[in-house]
Parts: sequence; structure tokens; C-alpha cells
Amino acid sequence: MRFPAELRAEPRETSLQPVGTPLEHYFSDSARRMVPSEVRSLFAVADRPEVVSLAGGMPNAAALQYGSAQGDPGLRERICGVMASAGISARPDEVLVTVGSQQALDLVARVLLDPGDTVVAEGPTYVTALGTFAAAQAEVVQVGMDRAGVIPDELAAAFARSAAEGRPAKLFYTIPTFQNPTGVTLSAGRRRQILDICRAAGVLIVEDDPYGLLHYGGGPSRALCADDPERVVYLGSFSKILAPGLRIGWAHAPAVLTRKLVLAAESAMLSHSALAQLTVDRYLCTQPWQERLASVRTSYRERRDAMLRALSAYMPAGVSWTVPDGGFFVWVTLPEGIDARVLLPRALAAGVAFVPGTGFYADGRGTRNARLSFSYPLPEEIDLGVRRLAAVIAEWR
Amino acid sequence: MRFPAELRAEPRETSLQPVGTPLEHYFSDSARRMVPSEVRSLFAVADRPEVVSLAGGMPNAAALQYGSAQGDPGLRERICGVMASAGISARPDEVLVTVGSQQALDLVARVLLDPGDTVVAEGPTYVTALGTFAAAQAEVVQVGMDRAGVIPDELAAAFARSAAEGRPAKLFYTIPTFQNPTGVTLSAGRRRQILDICRAAGVLIVEDDPYGLLHYGGGPSRALCADDPERVVYLGSFSKILAPGLRIGWAHAPAVLTRKLVLAAESAMLSHSALAQLTVDRYLCTQPWQERLASVRTSYRERRDAMLRALSAYMPAGVSWTVPDGGFFVWVTLPEGIDARVLLPRALAAGVAFVPGTGFYADGRGTRNARLSFSYPLPEEIDLGVRRLAAVIAEWR
Repeated sequence: MRFPAELRAEPRETSLQPVGTPLEHYFSDSARRMVPSEVRSLFAVADRPEVVSLAGGMPNAAALQYGSAQGDPGLRERICGVMASAGISARPDEVLVTVGSQQALDLVARVLLDPGDTVVAEGPTYVTALGTFAAAQAEVVQVGMDRAGVIPDELAAAFARSAAEGRPAKLFYTIPTFQNPTGVTLSAGRRRQILDICRAAGVLIVEDDPYGLLHYGGGPSRALCADDPERVVYLGSFSKILAPGLRIGWAHAPAVLTRKLVLAAESAMLSHSALAQLTVDRYLCTQPWQERLASVRTSYRERRDAMLRALSAYMPAGVSWTVPDGGFFVWVTLPEGIDARVLLPRALAAGVAFVPGTGFYADGRGTRNARLSFSYPLPEEIDLGVRRLAAVIAEWR
Repeated sequence: MRFPAELRAEPRETSLQPVGTPLEHYFSDSARRMVPSEVRSLFAVADRPEVVSLAGGMPNAAALQYGSAQGDPGLRERICGVMASAGISARPDEVLVTVGSQQALDLVARVLLDPGDTVVAEGPTYVTALGTFAAAQAEVVQVGMDRAGVIPDELAAAFARSAAEGRPAKLFYTIPTFQNPTGVTLSAGRRRQILDICRAAGVLIVEDDPYGLLHYGGGPSRALCADDPERVVYLGSFSKILAPGLRIGWAHAPAVLTRKLVLAAESAMLSHSALAQLTVDRYLCTQPWQERLASVRTSYRERRDAMLRALSAYMPAGVSWTVPDGGFFVWVTLPEGIDARVLLPRALAAGVAFVPGTGFYADGRGTRNARLSFSYPLPEEIDLGVRRLAAVIAEWR
């Protein structure tokens, strides 16, 4: 284990990254310290049939051995097939299997972010991503959205402002399709604009896409990653389309970044559960998962429709909401003067729970918002829950 | 997601920690930023039968749901039972289930270490622990060992030196039982001394114990944690006694530290695989695992004996080695003038692999050492491998 002096001393850029900056320039100080271990490099050499290996410390008594930190090669190939539906053409060596896409995001943060670095995200955004960026000691700037997704002018302005303050953004974290918490999808036209803006500002994109295959109207959206695979790290997950409890997600990144992510994964867990990986691999290989997914979509679409019907039927004037084409969530905006955090205990007393919008902002915004999820309850429960919530809002004073 | 100003601004101690310093004072800047999410706190409230929850984003289509970041409660209870054999009396709420003990170590590093912090470890030590400390940007000081484990006077001197240099050690990382890579076990007398020295210096202990149940002579060793549970974080694993590919390990820590570790785990992966956790839980509940472990010990003891016999039979004068009472490893010291890194390609050409000692030091020591593992090959392969290695050493010029 060596920490070459030149890596330690290498200065990091603090100005705007010019177009074409190599990815290595985005690495965190921590990532610069991650170097392949001599010991692990040796295991490959020792793995020849004529060699008696007294090198590795593998238990003999076990059916399920240690795997590679990058993940099962067969499963990585299957994952490339899944990503193809979002227009991504990937190679298995550019894929890292992770403990859900949450770990993928965490490892990306560790490899790319130093304390004080600026991350730009949608406002509102996924709550646990805010937790991951907080743990990485990054500063999060959240950019406004409308019903076509993040607003390009506001994104460009946020990049310019951060750069002018001497803290240029390093990452743009986005959930472009059926976003959590808004349910909103970034339009095709905006996708091109967003890519151009990030390219011009030298900002990398982390595209989190756990819901992309859960579309209830049109087909799948084309991933940002499909059009700029050298700038976009794509995060995927089997949690929403197979089972969260298996904890199989992945990151797809340019090869130079994938190599650092693999080192970070080795340091974080050595390797993921072989049992969980093989379960997903066998499922994808032997089961009609595309057909199963179609029936999953039908079941979620019924729930989405039940929620939209109930909102239209029961909500008092002044309440508005998003109309998601997929995913799990509707984002409600309450009438002026209603604070969702004060509304919540009243709603609970009336027998309905929601998440106040403030949880999805790092800066206290979202007081007039509520996230409603239609993924778990039955359609009739959704109807009842929305009716109860509408009554509590109507009684607000 | 809020970052209270008083947590951000709280100054960290840089002098020696006085006896009785509360654990919160050891937290890293990153850990200070980890606060429970409003959204997750809400899920508990929303989980009442009379409430329609539109709060959580759980998929409905799945058999295996998201679990708690802390791990399955039943499995945590079973883990307390396993730790009892090392003299530890633990409660399930002081246990965090992790992706192998590697993730436990990584989370401990994230919660306790800031860049530049000093970690003291045995010299030599576990290679991937060095990787984890490097990723945490900590400085590692390695303290000498003899055949009774780490040398107390050298440990005390290292603490005093670090403190005098203004970088007092925060952690002592140790594998006291059947150490990787030396196979050495810290004697009972030294365990008491080490605890006293760490207590006096205000240094926390991370006790890594993956091999403790693989004893081939006496019974299990009493854990350091058993005698000072408020100072010692204990890391355990099912990798060596059940299956590495399940990736089930754990951390046992004082409650205030466990709570931060759970937040770190949530940020790192949301939760571990329910499938892997339930597999281990069911195995421990329904299978005669203690008897199975006894036969595993017998099988490893045969391999250990084969290696020690072969070393005695074949090694030329000037070669010495440790005699492990358990675990997987023998640590060989080569005659003056032989560099293990130069020896390795010759050994590979002769059909035997080992790990050069330099991999287990952060500072280039270990050139005259080799780690031999007896865990995986058959006894006759071990004999052949050691014979080949002895011949290559004898031919050194």
C-alpha cells in the first residue's frame, strides 16, 4: 500500500473546468489515494492451475466465495442489456454492481467530491441523496423545476454563480425520469439543452434512473447517458422492478472512472453478496422478466390513475399537483398560507400520512408541498387517503 | 435535511483526549453532518394500521422489501449470541449488520476519521484496512509485534510521539486473535496492558475479529471489547465461519456511536440485502452451526499442521515462522539479504505463490517477510507448495 508523493501533492483545479478536461481532474483527494493493492494484483497471477497458491486468504469451508469488487461478470452483461432500453450502449467493464443505487451514489460521491465542493441538484430532490452529499461535506445548490423538468436557464445561472463565487459546480445530480419526489420527466428537448449546458460548464452529470422502466403511457425515455457517455454517470437499480431487499443496483461510468469506483467499492465492502447477485442474474436469464414488468406497470398505472382521480374529485380549490407518466410519486402544491409540516399531524390524526416538501430541500424550501406516493397502497386505500387529506386541507384555518 | 449551525461550527479537540471524554468528541466532521432525515422519522409514525400511508416510496410488486439500515432485528439478536463466546455481553440495539466486516471498518472510519487524523495499527496489518484508512486520508502509524502480539511499550511510545507532534492518535486498529497476516494472538496479559494504555491516551480501539472462532488448540480468546465495551468497537464476520459470498458482518459499538454508524450505513447503502440476512439468520436458528464449526476447525487444523510440518521439514537454515493457534496464516521471515518481492517471480516460476510482506505495511517494511495462507489448498498441496518455496529460497543467490 503506497501513497505516491506526486499524487498527494497534485493541485486540484478550482476554476471552471475547460471543455475536454480529462476525468482524472475531477477525482477527489480520497480517490487519488486509492491505488490497486499489491496483494490483490497478485491473486490474478497466482490463479494458474500449475501454481499452488499460498497467497489468498479464502476460506475453504464455504459454498459462496468472495467475488470481485466490480461484481459478477454475467450479471454485468445482463445489466448492459437492461440499460439498452434507455438507449445506452455499454460494455460490462464499464459497470459496477452495487448495494442498491444508493451505494452507487455514495461511491460516486467518494470518488468525485471533496469537502466544500459544489453539487447542483434539482429542487426538490431525493432525500437520501441530500444525506449522501451532506456526508461528503459538499454544498448542495438546488435549481428550480417546472412540469418539463429542471429549468435550463436556472441551471446555467447556478453554474455561473457557483463559478463566480470560486466554487464551480463539479456534479449535476439529476433524476430526469419520473423524478422523486415530483414525478416529473425532463422533456426530450430539455435533455439536449441540459447536456449542452453541462458540457459548456465542465460539469459532470450523475443520472439517477431507478424508475425509468416504470412508464405508464409512452415508452422508455432516452437516458442523458445515451448521448454523452463520457460526461454522464448512470445509476440503475433492480429495487423497483424486481425486489428492493436484494439490494442490487449499479453504476455505469466511463472506464477511467469505473476503475476508481471499483477501488472505492473494494475499500467499502470488498465485494457484494454473491447470493443476491446470482439471484438477480438467474432471474434475468431464466424468467420472462419483460412480461412480468409489463404486468407490474399495469398494477402501478391503476394506482396512479386512482390517485389522480381522487385528487380531481376531492381536493379543494387552490391545490395543484403534477401528473406523472411513470414512477411512484405525485407532488402536491398547497394553497398559500398552508404549511405542510403543520398539516401533517392533523393529517395523521385524520388517518393519512404524506411527506412534507421540506425534506426534499437542503435549504428549508418546500413548506407548501407534499409528496404523495401511490406505489404501495391499494387503489381503494389511495382513494380513502386522498379524501381524508382533502378534508384536512379544506378545514385549514 | 438540516445541518444545524452549532454542529458545523463545533471545534474539534486536537490535544490528547482526557480520560472520560464523551464519544461525540471523536466524531468526524462528516459524522457531525449526518442527521436523521425527517422523511425516515416519519415512516415510523405512518406505520399505524389506521393510517393510509401515502408517505413511503416502497414498491408493491416485491417479495423482499427494504429493511432497516441497522439490519434485521432477529439476526442482530443471533449476533449477540455469537459474540457471547468471546465474553461480550451485547444488546441488539448496539449492533449494526454490514456488508462483511470490511464495510463495518469503512463506516467506522467515516464516522470517526477526518483527513490527517492518526490511526495506529499493528505492523504488519490487514491490507484492505490500510486501503480503507488511505481512502479516509488518515495517517497510519504501525507498531511492532512479537509472538505475543503488539508490543505494549512500542504502542505507548507511538501514542506519545503522535501526541507530541500535535496529531494524537484517534484509533488503534487491531486484530488481536490469529492476526492477518502474522497468525499471532495477543496474550491475555498484554490485552489488559493494551486496554490500560489506550484508556490513558484517550484512544479508541477497533477490534477486528474475523478469525476468533477458528481456534485449533485452546478455546476462544476473550475479546478486548468484553473488558471495555465503551472504548472498543468490535467487528465480526460470518465470512470465515459460514460463507464469504453472503457478505454478512457486523459492528458492535457503544449506543451513541452505533446511532451514527446506522446513519452512515443509511447514506452508504440504505439497507443490506434482506435475502443474505435472512439466510444467515435461518442458518443460525435451524442448523447445528456450532457442530458444523467444530468440523470446520478440524479441517483447518489439518491444513495448519500440514504447513507447519512442511516448513520444519523443508525450509533451509535462517528461515523462521510463526506458529498460529488458529486462523489462516503463517508469517515467514526470510534470511538476511532475500527480498520477498524479488523471490516471488522465482517462486511463481517454480509453481508456488505467496504474498510478499511489503503489502501489509504502509511504509515499505516487510521486504524479508512472506504471508503463507493454509486455508484453501489441500494438505498435500500445502506440502508441495512449501517444498517448492523452500527450494527457491535455498537456491537464492
